Amino acid sequence: MLTVSQALEAILQEVVPSTPMQVPYDRAGGLILREAVTSDVDIPPFDKALMDGYALRASDAQGGLREFHVIEEILAGSTSQKTLKSGEASRIITGGPIPPGADAVVIVERTKLIEGAPPPRVQIDESRVEAEQNLIRKGTVARQGGIVVPAGKTLRAQEIGALVEAGSAAPLVAPQPRVAILATGDELVPPGSPLGPGQIRNSNEPMLAEQMRECGAHPQPLGIAPDQPEPLVELIRQGLQQDLLLLSGGVSAGKRDLVPAQLAAAGVRQIFHKIQMRPGKPLWFGVYHREAGGRCLVFGLPGNPVSSMVCADLFVRPALRKLQGIEPAVVSPLTARIAHPFRMQGDRPTYHPARLFAVGSELRVEIVDWVGSSDLRSTVSANGTVYLPPGEKSYSLGDEIPFHPWNQSGV
Amino acid sequence: MLTVSQALEAILQEVVPSTPMQVPYDRAGGLILREAVTSDVDIPPFDKALMDGYALRASDAQGGLREFHVIEEILAGSTSQKTLKSGEASRIITGGPIPPGADAVVIVERTKLIEGAPPPRVQIDESRVEAEQNLIRKGTVARQGGIVVPAGKTLRAQEIGALVEAGSAAPLVAPQPRVAILATGDELVPPGSPLGPGQIRNSNEPMLAEQMRECGAHPQPLGIAPDQPEPLVELIRQGLQQDLLLLSGGVSAGKRDLVPAQLAAAGVRQIFHKIQMRPGKPLWFGVYHREAGGRCLVFGLPGNPVSSMVCADLFVRPALRKLQGIEPAVVSPLTARIAHPFRMQGDRPTYHPARLFAVGSELRVEIVDWVGSSDLRSTVSANGTVYLPPGEKSYSLGDEIPFHPWNQSGV
Repeated sequence: MLTVSQALEAILQEVVPSTPMQVPYDRAGGLILREAVTSDVDIPPFDKALMDGYALRASDAQGGLREFHVIEEILAGSTSQKTLKSGEASRIITGGPIPPGADAVVIVERTKLIEGAPPPRVQIDESRVEAEQNLIRKGTVARQGGIVVPAGKTLRAQEIGALVEAGSAAPLVAPQPRVAILATGDELVPPGSPLGPGQIRNSNEPMLAEQMRECGAHPQPLGIAPDQPEPLVELIRQGLQQDLLLLSGGVSAGKRDLVPAQLAAAGVRQIFHKIQMRPGKPLWFGVYHREAGGRCLVFGLPGNPVSSMVCADLFVRPALRKLQGIEPAVVSPLTARIAHPFRMQGDRPTYHPARLFAVGSELRVEIVDWVGSSDLRSTVSANGTVYLPPGEKSYSLGDEIPFHPWNQSGV
Repeated sequence: MLTVSQALEAILQEVVPSTPMQVPYDRAGGLILREAVTSDVDIPPFDKALMDGYALRASDAQGGLREFHVIEEILAGSTSQKTLKSGEASRIITGGPIPPGADAVVIVERTKLIEGAPPPRVQIDESRVEAEQNLIRKGTVARQGGIVVPAGKTLRAQEIGALVEAGSAAPLVAPQPRVAILATGDELVPPGSPLGPGQIRNSNEPMLAEQMRECGAHPQPLGIAPDQPEPLVELIRQGLQQDLLLLSGGVSAGKRDLVPAQLAAAGVRQIFHKIQMRPGKPLWFGVYHREAGGRCLVFGLPGNPVSSMVCADLFVRPALRKLQGIEPAVVSPLTARIAHPFRMQGDRPTYHPARLFAVGSELRVEIVDWVGSSDLRSTVSANGTVYLPPGEKSYSLGDEIPFHPWNQSGV
C-alpha cells in the first residue's frame, strides 16, 4: 500500500497543466492568472490630485503669497491647456489632472473663495505648503510595460481592479476545471427522499460538488449509479469527458470490484488502489486518455462521507491545483499548538478533524469529537485536520502539531 | 467627523436582517443557515459495517470458533431478514446493515472462503475478535430530531452533506444579498478602452463586483454614470431596487455635491458623510426606504481604488453580514507580530495594506510598500490591513499589531 506522499506523487505525475485561455475580466474572479499582466500606460496615467482643492506653485506660497487668481476649474476627464504661472491657481477635484506649472494642491477646507468681481480669487489658510503635497506623479504606482499582476496569482478583487486599470480586459488564465461526480450504490436514494430499510441518502455527491466549487472547479453531478455494470459503465463514460471524474463508493474490497472493473471496461488505467491512511484507505486512482486528445483523472473515493471529504481535500485538490498551474500543488500544513491534552492510538497515519483558531498571535488547534469515517457532524465544527502518526501517542497542552486547513472560510 | 466604530454603529443600526427563504441544497453552498437542521432519522439509520468482511457473533470467536457457515450475502440497499445464530456469518460490505444477532465484523483480508460443496463456509484468521469491532451502531452520530447543523453556519461542503444526510433538501437560509454597483465620473472609460487625456479606466466597478462575490453577495454592475444630474439620478433609482447600492467616486468635496445631491433627489436619507480614517475619509452612507417596502443601504465609496476597497471591506462587509444574520457582524481583527521594523506617521487612523503569514505556530505580518490610496498594486501582495493609530509611532520586530484579514484566499 502506498503512503500518502507516494500517492500524491503518483497522482501529480499524471496531471498535465491545462491550456491557458482568455476570460473576460468580469468572469475571471477566482481563476489563476497564467501570464503576467503588464500595464499599457503609466499608472497613474497623469499627475493626479489626491484631494479636492486648488493646484498652485508651492514656491509662491513659500514666498508668502496667500491670495491667488483662479484661472480655471479642471473638470474630470479633461486636461488643462493652460500652464499655470506664478500667482495663479486652478480649482481641481480628487483624481483630476494637475495642470502644467503647478506642483502642489491645497485642500479646499484650507481655502476661501473671494466673492466679488471676476476674475475669481482664492485665499489659502495653510502655514506650510510643500512641493508635491496632495498629488501623485504619473507612473509612481507602475510604469508602462511594468508588471501589475504576476503570473500564478489567484485573481481576487484587487487583481481584477489592477488588471483592468492596466488595460487588460481579458486576462490569460487557467480555465475552470470541470469535475464530474458520480455516486454509486444500490443503497442510495436522492436528497429529500424518505428512507427504506438499509437505505441512505446520496449526500456525498452534493458534498463533493460543493467541495469542488470551494476549490474553484465547476462540478457536474451525474446522479446515482446502481450496482449494475451496464448503467454504471455508461455513466462512467459520460464522466470521462470532463477533466476529472470523482466516484463515491464502490472501491472497497467487498463490491466484487464492480467499480474498478467497469472503470477498466471504460478504458481507465489504474494507477493505484488503497493507501496507508485513516480515513480513506480504499482510495482508487486512474487515468483515461481520450481518443480525441486530453485526459481525465479518475478518483474512486471511499463511500463514508468523512473519508470521501478528506480524500478529496488531500488528493483531488492538489490535482486541481497542478491542473491550473498553482504552485505548490500540495498545500503545506500549518503548525499549531494543541489546546487541550489528547491521546491517540491508531494503526495507520490519521487525519483527524480539528479546529484551528488564534489566541493573540498564536495558532492553536482543538481536536474535535469524532466517532469515525461516518461522522460528518464532527467536520461541521472543524476547519481542517491534524496529522497523527501511527502508534500510540499523548499530546500535552502547547505541543506543536501539523494542521491541514480545508479550502473553506468559516467554521 | 465620525470615528470608524461610530460609523460602523451608525451603519449597523440601519441594517434589518433579511427574511430567510428555502433554497435547494445544490444552490445553498456559501449561504448562511438561518434555522438549525435536525435529522429526520437516526444517523446512521441502521447498525452499519465500517469495513468489508463477515458479520458474526464475537462470542463465537472468543469461544475459539474459527469456521462459520455463510448464511447469506447482504447487498447494499437491502436488510437481512434472518437472525444470525451461533456458528453463522454473513458476507457484508462497507456501509451494509449488520444482520440481527451479529455484533462484530471480521475484515475480508483476515478471512478465507472455503471452496467445496454448499453451504459455503468461511475461516477467520484473527486472534482477537472484539464485540462492536468494525461496525457503528444506529444513531451514534446523531439521533432523530437532533441538530446536525446549527443555525448561523455558513454552508460549506460538509454542512451540505450533513443536511442532505439528515433529510433536508432545501434548508432555510439568508438569501444572497443583491448589490448594485455604480461608478461615477466623466473621467472614466470602460475596461479595455484606450485612454484619452485625463481619462482612466473604470476599474473600481469590476473590483467591487468581485469583492461582493467574495462576501457571498450577487453584484449587479450598472456601468458608468457621467457627471450629469439626469442620467446619474436615473441610474441611482435603478440601483435603489437592490439590497445595497455602492457608488464609486463623486463623494469628495469637490464635485459640487453632485452625487450626494442626486442621492437626495432620489429620496436617499444621508446618515453620515466623512470619517476619520485613511484611506477612505470621504465615505458617504445613507438609507432609502422603498414605497413597496424594504430598504436599500447606500454607500458612496471614495474613487481612489484602495480607499474604495478598504471601505468596502471595513463597512460594506459588516452590513452584508448583519443582513444575512452572521454573528458577529463586525469581524474582529487578528493579532500578529511585526516581521520587520516599521515607522509610521499620520494624522488619521490608518488601515495600511499588509501581508499575514505564519512561521511555526506564530502569526506574523509584513507591512507592504504603499504609495497611497491610488496604489492598488500594493494590495496585490497583501491579504489585509494593519491598524495604525494617528501620530508618530515606531514598531520593532515582534511587536503585536491588529491585523484585519480580507475575505479572500490566496495572497
